[in-house]
Amino acid sequence: MSTKYSYLKQAAASRFDTDLMSEKCGFVLEQLMELAGFSVAQSITKEYSAKKFPNVLVCVGPGNNGGDGLVAARHLSHFGYKPKLYYPKKSSKVAFYDSLLKQCVQCDIPVEKDDFSQCLVNTDLIIDAFFGFGFKPPIREPYLAALKALEGTAIPIVSVDVPSGWDVDMGPLNSEGIKPEMLVSLTAPKPCAKLFSGKYHYLGGRFVPRFMLDEYNLNLPKYPNSDQCVALHTQSQL
Amino acid sequence: MSTKYSYLKQAAASRFDTDLMSEKCGFVLEQLMELAGFSVAQSITKEYSAKKFPNVLVCVGPGNNGGDGLVAARHLSHFGYKPKLYYPKKSSKVAFYDSLLKQCVQCDIPVEKDDFSQCLVNTDLIIDAFFGFGFKPPIREPYLAALKALEGTAIPIVSVDVPSGWDVDMGPLNSEGIKPEMLVSLTAPKPCAKLFSGKYHYLGGRFVPRFMLDEYNLNLPKYPNSDQCVALHTQSQL
Repeated sequence: MSTKYSYLKQAAASRFDTDLMSEKCGFVLEQLMELAGFSVAQSITKEYSAKKFPNVLVCVGPGNNGGDGLVAARHLSHFGYKPKLYYPKKSSKVAFYDSLLKQCVQCDIPVEKDDFSQCLVNTDLIIDAFFGFGFKPPIREPYLAALKALEGTAIPIVSVDVPSGWDVDMGPLNSEGIKPEMLVSLTAPKPCAKLFSGKYHYLGGRFVPRFMLDEYNLNLPKYPNSDQCVALHTQSQL
Repeated sequence: MSTKYSYLKQAAASRFDTDLMSEKCGFVLEQLMELAGFSVAQSITKEYSAKKFPNVLVCVGPGNNGGDGLVAARHLSHFGYKPKLYYPKKSSKVAFYDSLLKQCVQCDIPVEKDDFSQCLVNTDLIIDAFFGFGFKPPIREPYLAALKALEGTAIPIVSVDVPSGWDVDMGPLNSEGIKPEMLVSLTAPKPCAKLFSGKYHYLGGRFVPRFMLDEYNLNLPKYPNSDQCVALHTQSQL
């Protein structure tokens, strides 16, 4: 299936995000992260059943992409999955991340203390929520080692917005970047998504006011029913 | 269909809400209201199509029930409905309500300036988000006149959590209370729901951690798939 839709470059995505949370649109981070993380969790239910893929390792980065991952983990637990978190570095910049972590813990979601490679044991599905549209190299430890492990794994990976380690506008920095099986773009696909060759590409973030789409000249597909996600391309395996 | 499930009395519902937003669970109002309002909007899509019921009047009260209504209105606009707001008294207690209103306005949702009875013209469906589980009589103007008009209308009414004007634990205070066609209970049905005789009863608020259900001894039905609402009883008309 080939669909024509727009892409949002790194610099524009950053402005877009600022606009959403300014006087212009009036959103707060807590709302948008809830809807974004929910859309990631819902996208996963469309392609990976809780029965076949119960054990989900959520890789949580230090910024907003990690926050989306924490929200997704919590919703997945309500959907019957058994998520666990790899969350090596907690940012103290945004107090809300602590709340998101607490919410996960109160849903009995364990935080792994092991080496990343140990975390992959008994894992059916990986959510890559390390880095999002704000990513700039270089990648530092412990993310470097974790991404190396993700490059070598056969476990399917779902990347949130941007495959971690990829340049947001240019794609994989070398032939060895991670190869997610699913990509869930948020608000609009970033240019690197053109180089995504995995099975499932979804879009989430059904909260953008019409005038913002016009202002940023964005052409995006329609979401079905009350879904918070829409398939851009897919080859269903259920 | 008869299902056995628990009810949460007014006093317990208030404690429950406090627990959700305390250290115990770690949620913030902005998250819970987003999910609650979304569940109301999604419930509506299950029984009232945007094609047959495009014009939705959302009656917004001064507290959290009104906030849920503002969130529902915004999601309904994304789902293809044409919501409009009756929002006579803006509370200055919670600054977030201003943000919620702004988000609606930025989605081109009009705020009606007319008399309430005028607002009912060209309305296919009414969302009653005046008062929720915190309601205590007496009802003051302009809500008294609005509820009188709702008692007399033939337009279907969807009540959020509690039919406005009903006693949370005892139900309608007199034979003339409003008679919603749909009730969307939030987190758990309140005792007044036992006296609800409309066509559709849904439950929303799929965010309660397991331990809270145990602690409050709540038995609730399972939500399907990734839905944020579940039908408690229904007679589908679509």
